Amino acid sequence: MLSNQLQNGLETAKLVWSRLPNAEEGDQEDVGLLQKRDGSSVESLDYEVIENHAYWEEQAQRGKLFVGYYVVVKWFFALLIGIGTGLAAVFINLSVENFAGWKFALTFSIIQKSYVAGFIVYVLINLVLVFSSVYIITHFAPAASGSGIPEIKGYLNGVDIHGVLLFRTLIGKIFGSIGSVGGGLALGKEGPLVHTGACIASLLGQGGSTKYHLSSRWLQFFNSDRDRRDLVTCGCAAGVAAAFRAPVGGVLFALEEVTSWWRSQLMWRVFFTSAIVAVVVRTAMGWCKSGNCGHFGSGGFIIWDTSDGQEDYSFEELLPMAVIGVIGGLLGALFNQLTIYITKWRRNHLHKKGNRVKIIEACLISLITSFISFGLPLLRKCSPCPESDPESGIECPRPPGMYGNYVNFYCSKDKEYNDLATIFFNTQDDAIRNLFSAKTIHEFSAQSLLTFLVMFYSLAVVTFGTAVPAGQFVPGIMIGSTYGRLVGMFVVNFYKKLNIEEGTYALLGAASFLGGSMRMTVSLCVIMVEITNNLKLLPLIMLVLLISKAVGDAFNEGLYEEQARLRGIPLLESRPKYQMRKMTAREASGERVVSFPRVVKVADVVSILRSNKHNGFPVIDHTRSGETLVIGLMLRSHLLVLLQSKVDFQHSPLPCDLTPGARPIRHTPSEFVKPASSKGISIDDIHLSSDDLEMYIDLAPFLNPSPYIVPEDMSLTKVYNLFRQLGLRHIFVVPRPSRVIGLITRKDLLIEENEESSTVELQSTSVRARWRDRSVSNGDGDAERPLLNGLLVQHSPS
Amino acid sequence: MLSNQLQNGLETAKLVWSRLPNAEEGDQEDVGLLQKRDGSSVESLDYEVIENHAYWEEQAQRGKLFVGYYVVVKWFFALLIGIGTGLAAVFINLSVENFAGWKFALTFSIIQKSYVAGFIVYVLINLVLVFSSVYIITHFAPAASGSGIPEIKGYLNGVDIHGVLLFRTLIGKIFGSIGSVGGGLALGKEGPLVHTGACIASLLGQGGSTKYHLSSRWLQFFNSDRDRRDLVTCGCAAGVAAAFRAPVGGVLFALEEVTSWWRSQLMWRVFFTSAIVAVVVRTAMGWCKSGNCGHFGSGGFIIWDTSDGQEDYSFEELLPMAVIGVIGGLLGALFNQLTIYITKWRRNHLHKKGNRVKIIEACLISLITSFISFGLPLLRKCSPCPESDPESGIECPRPPGMYGNYVNFYCSKDKEYNDLATIFFNTQDDAIRNLFSAKTIHEFSAQSLLTFLVMFYSLAVVTFGTAVPAGQFVPGIMIGSTYGRLVGMFVVNFYKKLNIEEGTYALLGAASFLGGSMRMTVSLCVIMVEITNNLKLLPLIMLVLLISKAVGDAFNEGLYEEQARLRGIPLLESRPKYQMRKMTAREASGERVVSFPRVVKVADVVSILRSNKHNGFPVIDHTRSGETLVIGLMLRSHLLVLLQSKVDFQHSPLPCDLTPGARPIRHTPSEFVKPASSKGISIDDIHLSSDDLEMYIDLAPFLNPSPYIVPEDMSLTKVYNLFRQLGLRHIFVVPRPSRVIGLITRKDLLIEENEESSTVELQSTSVRARWRDRSVSNGDGDAERPLLNGLLVQHSPS
Repeated sequence: MLSNQLQNGLETAKLVWSRLPNAEEGDQEDVGLLQKRDGSSVESLDYEVIENHAYWEEQAQRGKLFVGYYVVVKWFFALLIGIGTGLAAVFINLSVENFAGWKFALTFSIIQKSYVAGFIVYVLINLVLVFSSVYIITHFAPAASGSGIPEIKGYLNGVDIHGVLLFRTLIGKIFGSIGSVGGGLALGKEGPLVHTGACIASLLGQGGSTKYHLSSRWLQFFNSDRDRRDLVTCGCAAGVAAAFRAPVGGVLFALEEVTSWWRSQLMWRVFFTSAIVAVVVRTAMGWCKSGNCGHFGSGGFIIWDTSDGQEDYSFEELLPMAVIGVIGGLLGALFNQLTIYITKWRRNHLHKKGNRVKIIEACLISLITSFISFGLPLLRKCSPCPESDPESGIECPRPPGMYGNYVNFYCSKDKEYNDLATIFFNTQDDAIRNLFSAKTIHEFSAQSLLTFLVMFYSLAVVTFGTAVPAGQFVPGIMIGSTYGRLVGMFVVNFYKKLNIEEGTYALLGAASFLGGSMRMTVSLCVIMVEITNNLKLLPLIMLVLLISKAVGDAFNEGLYEEQARLRGIPLLESRPKYQMRKMTAREASGERVVSFPRVVKVADVVSILRSNKHNGFPVIDHTRSGETLVIGLMLRSHLLVLLQSKVDFQHSPLPCDLTPGARPIRHTPSEFVKPASSKGISIDDIHLSSDDLEMYIDLAPFLNPSPYIVPEDMSLTKVYNLFRQLGLRHIFVVPRPSRVIGLITRKDLLIEENEESSTVELQSTSVRARWRDRSVSNGDGDAERPLLNGLLVQHSPS
Repeated sequence: MLSNQLQNGLETAKLVWSRLPNAEEGDQEDVGLLQKRDGSSVESLDYEVIENHAYWEEQAQRGKLFVGYYVVVKWFFALLIGIGTGLAAVFINLSVENFAGWKFALTFSIIQKSYVAGFIVYVLINLVLVFSSVYIITHFAPAASGSGIPEIKGYLNGVDIHGVLLFRTLIGKIFGSIGSVGGGLALGKEGPLVHTGACIASLLGQGGSTKYHLSSRWLQFFNSDRDRRDLVTCGCAAGVAAAFRAPVGGVLFALEEVTSWWRSQLMWRVFFTSAIVAVVVRTAMGWCKSGNCGHFGSGGFIIWDTSDGQEDYSFEELLPMAVIGVIGGLLGALFNQLTIYITKWRRNHLHKKGNRVKIIEACLISLITSFISFGLPLLRKCSPCPESDPESGIECPRPPGMYGNYVNFYCSKDKEYNDLATIFFNTQDDAIRNLFSAKTIHEFSAQSLLTFLVMFYSLAVVTFGTAVPAGQFVPGIMIGSTYGRLVGMFVVNFYKKLNIEEGTYALLGAASFLGGSMRMTVSLCVIMVEITNNLKLLPLIMLVLLISKAVGDAFNEGLYEEQARLRGIPLLESRPKYQMRKMTAREASGERVVSFPRVVKVADVVSILRSNKHNGFPVIDHTRSGETLVIGLMLRSHLLVLLQSKVDFQHSPLPCDLTPGARPIRHTPSEFVKPASSKGISIDDIHLSSDDLEMYIDLAPFLNPSPYIVPEDMSLTKVYNLFRQLGLRHIFVVPRPSRVIGLITRKDLLIEENEESSTVELQSTSVRARWRDRSVSNGDGDAERPLLNGLLVQHSPS
C-alpha cells in the first residue's frame, strides 16, 4: 500500500511538472500582481474562516471557555479602539484649533497696525504649517497622503494596500493633517480621522508595530484577516464618530461602505465603539471648557447647531430645495470629474519627478490659498451692520479675537463688517457656522457668495491630490452651503415669508454637494442631522440627497470609487455587471491551474513558486483506486512560511500520518499570519541548502480542506455573489458533479444548541454512527477516500 | 445515439424507482412540512435568482432597455408603498385618536355628574371596541392577531407563513388594531403598522389580491421571491417610519432584522420609501392642524418631544443610568419569559377551544383593564397643584377635555390633581408624554408610579397573545418610563441638583425596557432619538441599551425570536451554532436523495411527488460515455405547475431539443410564481387522464441548472454561512471533485462594463473562442458533456 502511495505521489509530482512549462509568468495572477504605477502593490485578503488542521486542533484544545474569552477580548479591543480614536481626534482638533486660532489672533492684532505685515505673517504661518505637513508625508509616511477613505474602503472590500495600515502611516496622518488643516488649505480633517481610526484598530489587532518594537505579544490575538477586518470596521466607524461627533452616523458609514459581509453581532460592537468615542470626546470637551485647551474652548469639534433655525417649511419651498439637489448633483459630478483629470495629470507628469516637486507644489498651493483668502476680502467693500437684535446674541462686528459672524476686516468704520472675510478669512469650521447661522438674513451679498463659491471650488479641486492628508467633507460642506445660501437668499426675496432661514438652505446645499460627490445615502443623511443637531430637517435632507445622488450618478461614480479606481484598488461593487449573466464560471477563471500533490519535494515547491505568481494552489491526491481527488487549497504565503521555518520538512515522501514516529504538527495559525499592509515574505528571501531541497513536505496539515467550489457552467452572476457575500479570495471551478450525496435545506441547519459539551459529543457521535451505517449500506465512501480518512476525519471527537 | 440515450433515460428512471421504496414519507422533508399546531404550515422562500432557460430567454429578448424599465418600476413601487403605508398609518391614528378622544371626553363630561354612570359608559365603550377587534380577527383574519413582527421577520429570513401577507390580513390588521388600541388595552399600534406596511408591499408586488378580484394584470411585475422580499423590506421600513415618524429608524429596523442579505442599492430604495412616508404623514398632520380631523389635532403620531429637557449630564448620573439599564434587562427578560409561558398555556389549553373562548378572553381582559384604569385612580388621594410657572405653559389642573399633565380626577378641590389618573386614566400616548415631560419634578409620587408599574406590567403580560392585533412598543415604553421616572425621582432627591429632569430618566427607562425585551440595538436607539427629537441624549441611550441588552441576553432570546420559535417559524440566526464547527455537510444533509432523470414519464413524476414531501429534486442525466452528471435542481412547485398545465407533455421519451419539430418553450417564469402566503398547488389537486400519465416531460428547460454545491466534508459552519448569506433554499452536497478546472480570484471578477451591447458580444465571443481552444488542447469537455451542450450553452450569444 505504501509503495502504491509513493507511486501516486511521484506521479502527481510528474503531472505537475509536465504542466509547468506551460504556466507562463503572471498567467493566472492574483490581485497581488496588480502592480501600481508607484511600484507598490495591493493584495487580496481572505475572509474565509481558516479551517485547516492546526486551527481545528487549537479549537478543540481550547473549547468553549476559550470562545467566551475570545468574545470578551473582542469587546475589550472595541473599547480600546474607541478610546484611542477618541483621543487621537481630540489631539488633532486641539492642535488644529490652537494653531489656527493663534494664527488668526496674531494676524488680526497685527493688521490693526499694518495690513502688509499682517499679510506676511499670515502667509508665512500657513506656509510653515503646510511645509511641515508635506515634508512629513513625503519623507516619512507616503501612504498617509490624501483622505485614506478609498484605501480603507478597499481594505474592507478585501484588498490590502501596502503601507496603508502601518504605524508610520498613523503618525504621518495625525501630524500631517494638523499641518495641512491648520495651514488653511481647502481640505478637511475628517477623512484622515477615519484613516487614523482604522490604523489604530489594525495596529491594536496585530499587537502593535513590529518594525518599531512597539509590539506586545499578549496583544497578538487576532490571527485571521476576518478578525482584523472586523476591528478595522470598528476603527472606521470610530473615526467618523470622532470626526463629526456623530456616533450613529459612524455606524452607518461603516455599514454603507462594507455591506457585503455585515453581521448583526458586529453592528452591535461597532455601535459600542462609537458610543465610547462619543463619551471620550464629550469628556475632553468638558475638560476643555474649563479653559485648559487654549483656543479649543469655542471651536473644535464639529457641531453646527441649527436647532434654533427654521422649524417648518411650506410646499412652495420644495421646488427651490429640489433645485439645490440638482445643482449639488451637477457640481458634485463635476468635482469628481475634475479631480480625476487632475489626479491623472499629477500621477503621469508631476509626481513622477519626486518628492521635491511634491513639496514645491504643496507650498505653492498654500501661497495661492493665503493670497486669495487674504486678498479677495480686501477688494470687497464693507457693509454697514444690520440693526442689532439683543435676543439673538449676535454682535456686529464681532469682538476682536473671538469667533462669530460679522468680521470687521479692512473696513473704514467701526460699525461695518466685511461679508467675504466672514467666510473666507476664517477657519473653515467658523465659516460654515456663519453660513449655517439662522437669524442673519441678508448678512451675505450674492456677489460675495458667488466669488467665494468660484474661488473655493477651484482651490478645492487644485488642492485635492497634493501630498498632504486631506479630507473632502469640510470643503464639500463649504461649497455646498455657499450655493445653498445663494438659493436661500433668492427664496427669501421671492416668497417674502418671515420664517424662511437662509441657513437652512445652506445646510441643504451642503448635503446636496456631499451627496452629489460622495454618493453616500443613509449615513450622510444621519451625519448631517447629527452635526446640525436638528432632526426636523431630516425629510428635507433625504429629498435633497435623493435628487443630488441621482443626478450625480448619471455622470460618473462616487468620489471614493473613482479615486480607488485611479489608485488601482480593485473594488468589487455590490452589483454584478450585466454581462456576467451570460458568462460562466469557466469562462471567467484563469486559464491554467498549477496544482500540488499532497506530499511534495521542497525543490519542486521552490520551482513552482518561482515560476508563477499565483497565490493559491489546489492540492490533489490520489485514492487507492487511482482516481484523483482535490483535497484542498494551499496558499502561497503559507508555503513560504513552511519553507522559511523548515521544521516541517521530512525525509520520507510519505504522508506524515503514515510515517513512523510522525511528529505533532508544530505550526500554529499565528505563524502564518501576515501583518496588515506589509509585503510579507517573498520567495527570493528564502535560501535553502541543497539538502533542504531534497526533502519533502506533507501539505495536508496546512491546507484549507474545503474551499468553496462552483460547477464550471454556473453563471458568473452567481459566482460573483458568492465571492463577494462571503468575502472569498479563491473559488475552485470544478466539473459538474456526477451525483448528489445529500440535499441541505433550512431544516437541516436548525440544530438546537446544547450547552453541555457532553451532549454535543454524544450527538455528534450518533450522527457519525448513522453516517457510518449509511456508508456501509451504500458500499461507497471507504473505497473512495482512504488517504483522506486520516486527514479529514481527524478533527472529529475521538 | 438516440437509442443509447433512451436506454440511459430508462435506466435512470429505474434507478430512481429502485430507490423509492426506501424513501419514507417525510424522510427528507423541507421546512414546508414543519406543521404548526393549528394546522397551518410555513414554507421556505427561494431567494436565488432563477436561472433556468425561460428566464434567460426572456432576459435576452428584453435586454438592457427592459432592465432600465424594471428599475424605474421598482422605484415607482417604493413610492406606492410609501404612500400606501403612510395613508394607512394616518387612517389608523386618526381613528384611534378620535375613538379614544371621544371616549375620554364623554366620560369626563359624565363624571362631572355621576362617577358610576361615567364608569359604566367607559367600560362599555372599551368593551365594544375590543369586541369589534377580536370579532374581526377570529372570524375574518386570524393571521392578523398579535404584532406580526415575528412573521415579517420570518418572511425576510426566508420563511413564508401561510396567510400572513393576504389582503384579508391587511384589512383585519387595520380595523382590528383600531379596536384594540382604541379600546384601551395594554398594547400598541406600532407592530401592527409594520405588518400593515409589509402586507401593502406584498400585495402591490403581486398586483393585488386574486381572491377578491382586486388584482391588476399590469401590476404583476415581480416574479421572484427575491423581488418580493425587497418590496416587503421597503414595506417593513415604511411601517416603522409611519408608526414612530422615524424614517431613519425605519431603515435601520429593516436592516437590523434582515442583515443576512442586505445590499446597498436596496438600502437606498428603502430610504426613499421612508422619506415618502415622512412626507405623507407630515402632510396629513398639516391638514389635520386646520381642524379637519376631530380629536386628531393634538395627539396622534408619536412625537414625545423632549428637546426642552435635560441638556447635560454629570458623571455621577452614569451610575443610576446603568442601574436603569440593569433593571431594564431584568424586567425585559422576565417579560419575555412570562409571555413564553402564557403563550404556551394559551396555545395548549385556551385557544384549542375555538373562537368563542378567544372572544370571551379578550372581552374579559378589556373589562379588567377598564376596571383597573378607572378604579385605581379613585382610590388614590389627590395632591395639591404645584405653584404654577407661567413660562412652562403647563396648567394645573389641565382644562377639561384637553390633553396634558395634572388630570383632575375624583378630587375634592379645584386646584388638585390625581397623579395616578394622569398616567392611568389617559390614552397611552398622553401618559407617556406626561411621564417624559420636563419641568414637572415631583408631579408623580413613588407610590403611584410603583402601583402603575406593577398593574400595567401584569396587564401587558396578560394581554400579550390575545387574538387582537397588538404591538409591544408602546406598552414597553410605558413600563420602562415608569421605573425610569422612579429612578429619576431618587436621583433628584439624592444629588439635589437643579438641572436633573425626571423625564430624561423616564426616557432612558423606556429605552432600557425595550432593549431588554426586544434586544434591538442601533435601530431602537435611533427610533428613541427620533421619537423624542433630542439628539443630545444619544450616548446615554446607547449606554443604557448596551447594558440592558447584555443583561437580557444572559437569560433568554429577544421577544420576537422567542415568539417566532413558539409559532414554529424556523429563523436562521446570524451566527452558526458552535457544534456546527465539528459537523460536515454530509452529516447534516438529509439521508436519501430522490432524483429525476432528464426526461421523465408523467406517471413517474406523480408517483414520486405523492410518495414524499421533498421540495427539491436533483435532475441527473447521462453522458455519451455513460457517466452520470447532475444537471440541475427541479422544484416541486414547478413540477406541479407543469403537471397542471399539461402543455409541455410530449409523447417521445427523447429530450425536446432532439425531438423533431420541437416546440418553443411555453412557460414564462411568471406562471411558476406562487402568490405570497398562499398554499400553492398540491399534488392531490391535480387530475390526469391515463393518456396523460403515459406521456413524458423534458425537465431541462425548467430546472435551475446550477444550484450551489458544497463538497461532502465541508464544515457545517461554512455551509451555514453560504446558505444564510445567499438566502438559499437548497444546497447540493456532492462528492469531492476529482480535478480543478479553474480558479476564480478577484481579478477575474473585475470586468469593465461596456455600454454598447455589440462590444459585450464581441468580448463574450472572444472568451468563448479562447475557451474552445483550451478545450481542444485539453481533449476533454466535449466527450463529457454532449447532452448538456444543447442545454447549457444554449443561452450563450449565438
